[in-house]
Amino acid sequence: MAESPNPRVLRIGILGFGTVGSGAYRMLHDNREEITRKIGLSYEVVRIGIRDSEKTRALPKTMFTTDLLSIVDDPEIDVVLELMGGVEPAGDLVERAIMNGKHVVTANKELIAKHGSRLVALAKSQSLDLHYEAAVGGGIPLVQPLKHQLAGNDVLKMMGILNGTTNYILSKMKSEGSDFSVALAEAQAKGYAEADPTNDVDGFDTAYKISILASIAFGKQVPVAGVYREGIRTITKIDMQYADLLGYCIKLLGVVEPRGQGCVLARVHPTLLPNAHPLASVNGVYNALWLHGDFVGDVMFSGRGAGSDPTASAVIGDFIDVGRNMLAGGCGSAIPYGIGIETAPISELVTSYYLRIQVQDRPKVLGAIATVFGEFDVSLAAMEMKTLDGGRGEIVFLTHPCVEKSFCDALHQLESSGTIEVVCNWFRVEG
Amino acid sequence: MAESPNPRVLRIGILGFGTVGSGAYRMLHDNREEITRKIGLSYEVVRIGIRDSEKTRALPKTMFTTDLLSIVDDPEIDVVLELMGGVEPAGDLVERAIMNGKHVVTANKELIAKHGSRLVALAKSQSLDLHYEAAVGGGIPLVQPLKHQLAGNDVLKMMGILNGTTNYILSKMKSEGSDFSVALAEAQAKGYAEADPTNDVDGFDTAYKISILASIAFGKQVPVAGVYREGIRTITKIDMQYADLLGYCIKLLGVVEPRGQGCVLARVHPTLLPNAHPLASVNGVYNALWLHGDFVGDVMFSGRGAGSDPTASAVIGDFIDVGRNMLAGGCGSAIPYGIGIETAPISELVTSYYLRIQVQDRPKVLGAIATVFGEFDVSLAAMEMKTLDGGRGEIVFLTHPCVEKSFCDALHQLESSGTIEVVCNWFRVEG
Repeated sequence: MAESPNPRVLRIGILGFGTVGSGAYRMLHDNREEITRKIGLSYEVVRIGIRDSEKTRALPKTMFTTDLLSIVDDPEIDVVLELMGGVEPAGDLVERAIMNGKHVVTANKELIAKHGSRLVALAKSQSLDLHYEAAVGGGIPLVQPLKHQLAGNDVLKMMGILNGTTNYILSKMKSEGSDFSVALAEAQAKGYAEADPTNDVDGFDTAYKISILASIAFGKQVPVAGVYREGIRTITKIDMQYADLLGYCIKLLGVVEPRGQGCVLARVHPTLLPNAHPLASVNGVYNALWLHGDFVGDVMFSGRGAGSDPTASAVIGDFIDVGRNMLAGGCGSAIPYGIGIETAPISELVTSYYLRIQVQDRPKVLGAIATVFGEFDVSLAAMEMKTLDGGRGEIVFLTHPCVEKSFCDALHQLESSGTIEVVCNWFRVEG
Repeated sequence: MAESPNPRVLRIGILGFGTVGSGAYRMLHDNREEITRKIGLSYEVVRIGIRDSEKTRALPKTMFTTDLLSIVDDPEIDVVLELMGGVEPAGDLVERAIMNGKHVVTANKELIAKHGSRLVALAKSQSLDLHYEAAVGGGIPLVQPLKHQLAGNDVLKMMGILNGTTNYILSKMKSEGSDFSVALAEAQAKGYAEADPTNDVDGFDTAYKISILASIAFGKQVPVAGVYREGIRTITKIDMQYADLLGYCIKLLGVVEPRGQGCVLARVHPTLLPNAHPLASVNGVYNALWLHGDFVGDVMFSGRGAGSDPTASAVIGDFIDVGRNMLAGGCGSAIPYGIGIETAPISELVTSYYLRIQVQDRPKVLGAIATVFGEFDVSLAAMEMKTLDGGRGEIVFLTHPCVEKSFCDALHQLESSGTIEVVCNWFRVEG
């Protein structure tokens, strides 16, 4: 391996100057003394690539360029911070930066979830660093601890609150008894949710993140398409209230578990969690990852999962590592992960379920429901009931753990036979 | 830098085969496939150094030696896992292993707290790794995330529950309303506390750990002698009950904050924490570190802070890093930390205080107490009272934040003037 000459000054190119890019720039500026001491080298931001040159910015115009290729092609630049997001053109730019001999730090969850295996292998083949701590959990150290300090464990389960927008909305729904639409509007007004909230509230963002964490833990890229995904739009304040009555909260979780050799079950969906579970007290825009390893036991990490400053913290932590590795004369010790892991279908999941239904004649149908569930090996663990107008009744069940296919088949039979008038909602339960 | 040849098999020597050593050996054995995949190399435990060759062990006798020097001098051994604890002879053995060109992984908090600066610099000078993740927080990744992912932050405060024994005792005192001696006996019966519990209950263990974390965060070795230290023996169930009434729990915390340039205030003592603080719900043998950085904001890590398996998880995580670095042809990117940081005296602390006193004539003395406190710039925030036998009264105060010296001076004046009959107890309050 060729030894790279120790540069006197690390030269940085930044792609993107939105929330994350401007935060990273600010941290490089404000904490220069701390960062320089930790690396052992000084640094300089050479150029910042942007899309819109007309925006007013606090830095000299000469710092900026809309010619993004000029940054990844600049032979003077040692490290590229890719903070623009999205797969294109970010992916091509990252690849070209690596081919041009540059270390790359990225916060791009979609890019890493979709192309991490290829890009990490490419960087490794060039003896370059490609770091992406900021892609998952904002400022919370998750990616690297999973790669390093926890690496000797067989991971038996991971569950994470990995999206601040949805956790803010669900926390508001619980604390204020509001409906989804009200809480969403509030999140939008506060800047926590975008005008088009699809990426967050429909679980795409969480799916990228659990895919990245699962790929590290299980050593092969877990395809995003193999992650079962449901968002939070269907959760009502009525469900929140029943959950509370039963001692649970509802969180959008990314979950992954091994399913035998070479197979995982990865999923994103609203989940009832007992109030005593450590993840249950992670509220507002905070994120957290809970992990169970065969040796480490339970371990949890929490903190701010998004925002300019926390994300900058992760980007700059990675940048410091790149700088140190350059000084030490080699790249970091990332192990590329391959492809080819299987993902099990959600129908194979074994867990407990929350079910809210409406029935016409409560006394008569209860026995019928229990009987059908019993035929499908679904046993009931808890029940709450309420009388509605017109003699109808609303019933909420919690089941014992059972196979999802059995639960769904039983439910289908109860619905098509007319025993259950309306299936209002059902959710998976953990813990 | 000379490139080390890629060994086909990593050869390991282990010093110590107690709780930690046997756990590390078991993890190397049970998770061989996972660990080999993560390193990219196979490995072999060559020899295990022990003190007592007469003990019955499940491994062949030829694996063991009481000649510890023969392990650190063995030219066949690549990596030494120092898992015996204590400063001597562990320190000399680690130093000699490094001088003999071996990477070292240690779980030895006392050694690193006292000699970390020198040993890390020595390893660095030989282009070798010296890792010590297991020295703090058992299996919870703390040392490396602080060195790497959080490295760009100015750490504004760290508070940790870093000793499982004391946290178990305090959790029992709270949940069962028992006194210290009862909870200690229970912890001893369960194997969570040693026959001589001094190292844990008097805060020495926590002082080593906060000293290590502070040294990393502030870049210079924080001397253990500069860490203010108080244990938990003085906490009574009465204080637990008053704290609970006021919405607080009592935890043994290690705390460190910067005090201007080149100075920190580091301390270990029982602390009242609001029940809503994330550290307040860390109970039993669990450990946790809460940290506030200027960019990352609040971040918290929790998990099992001791025990054979969790500690093995950290040791083996470090070992995997050593192996990867050897494959990549260089040592890791540790930055040595120097010496020469100042530690501020506890008298300069600014915080709130909990004070429990007994007085002869409650109505008369309350005004006098408030007046004297006022003269010393100590203002009262909350109060609880109880009538005792013989007309005496027990009063508990919470103060607003004030300088510790002022609080103590006021208390001294109230005591020596006879206004306060008995100062039963006082503790610092956080959050």
